[in-house]
Amino acid sequence: MPVQDRDGRAPQAVIFDVFGTLVDWRSGVAAALERALAARGVAADPLALADAWRGEYDPSMAPIREGRRPYLPLDELHRENLVRVLDRHGLGGLFDAEETARLARAWEALPPWPDVRQGLAAIRRLAIAAPCSNGSIALMVHLARHAGLVWDCILGADIARSYKPDPRVYLAACAALRLAPAQVMMVAAHNADLAAARAVGLMTGFIPRPAEHGPGGRQEAAPDAGWDIVAPDLPALARRLAALPRG
Amino acid sequence: MPVQDRDGRAPQAVIFDVFGTLVDWRSGVAAALERALAARGVAADPLALADAWRGEYDPSMAPIREGRRPYLPLDELHRENLVRVLDRHGLGGLFDAEETARLARAWEALPPWPDVRQGLAAIRRLAIAAPCSNGSIALMVHLARHAGLVWDCILGADIARSYKPDPRVYLAACAALRLAPAQVMMVAAHNADLAAARAVGLMTGFIPRPAEHGPGGRQEAAPDAGWDIVAPDLPALARRLAALPRG
Repeated sequence: MPVQDRDGRAPQAVIFDVFGTLVDWRSGVAAALERALAARGVAADPLALADAWRGEYDPSMAPIREGRRPYLPLDELHRENLVRVLDRHGLGGLFDAEETARLARAWEALPPWPDVRQGLAAIRRLAIAAPCSNGSIALMVHLARHAGLVWDCILGADIARSYKPDPRVYLAACAALRLAPAQVMMVAAHNADLAAARAVGLMTGFIPRPAEHGPGGRQEAAPDAGWDIVAPDLPALARRLAALPRG
Repeated sequence: MPVQDRDGRAPQAVIFDVFGTLVDWRSGVAAALERALAARGVAADPLALADAWRGEYDPSMAPIREGRRPYLPLDELHRENLVRVLDRHGLGGLFDAEETARLARAWEALPPWPDVRQGLAAIRRLAIAAPCSNGSIALMVHLARHAGLVWDCILGADIARSYKPDPRVYLAACAALRLAPAQVMMVAAHNADLAAARAVGLMTGFIPRPAEHGPGGRQEAAPDAGWDIVAPDLPALARRLAALPRG
């Protein structure tokens, strides 16, 4: 689908990737794993486990995106993936089903990057602000309450019943807001997320999060040329949005 | 379906009817109609028109509830109903399509009852708080931004693709939160809404809004016996919730 013409006007709504873009999933998940392992007196590297757990994320969504498996919320995939990762690290059976389910909820309690509370509030004064994450409504509710984030509604995988970068997720978010894609900006730290949003006509905003994968960890490529806004953090993005003519 | 056993514990989430329970739709809609009519120099009773418009609300949802018409958001029904009411009052053609669409958005800008901002904030400190309205996600976003309400997510008709009192709407709200119906309390000023929620296992809270239909207007019946909580306003409901053992 061709990118729609843009008139340089401010978006009516800004929708956000969450894991990596708004919150530091790696530190948060590793901290939860570390507590759970310590309670069992088990020595294992929680950061390596967190990375391995996140490594299962994309492959686990693929069958749902491709229609080979019915939609189920990310909470369920996180739990399945945790079991697989623990097994592979020789930790299978360490936690019973209830403990595993509780540990899988580590993704509900993640620290926001330091600029996010203030930046999100500034953006919300300018436009509708909502997550467009692969996390479920329940997951986003708990995450926001833990991190002290306020947004206008929760969009994303649950309302589309598929996972990004399936174009239906971005389009379902726009439809729920009764806005055209060209009136909505997708914000992410990941080029692929923005490319998928742009392909169906959304505006795009890139925020780098070089610490997402930890010190010395994998770095996202430099932002692709041509995102509508590239800003160092959310408050800077808010200032750029405030300078645009009102949509 | 039998009402589930209740253990008297606090709900994990409180979900709200909106039109009538949280906001004064009649004053807000009449004010918008009055402005639009005055701009055309037309003398008509805006409160009578507001009542007639609201009178179309329930009949217009029935074919969707009953599966005879595909789901479409309340915004669209409000617009269709406005056209019908204006025609019936000899005002057909007074507004063009764009003006009619804009006037139909009167439901996005309604005053909250005076206790609501504070009461909703108090309840949100105790539990997840979300609207479970027949209004769309877009409608609830605009309504909340106008009224200064903060909630954790938006549940209701759009995520269920049907209208209350269809039991699927209450059950879809619980499912989105990954909670059992017995962990969720529906709050409304209308007995029928609570009866439908209770029939599928939710807890129930009744708040009277005797001014909903204006001075001398139709009064909701006294609260049915047996709602889990009956309170005079939202802050009082919050105090009752705070006194329950944590769920």
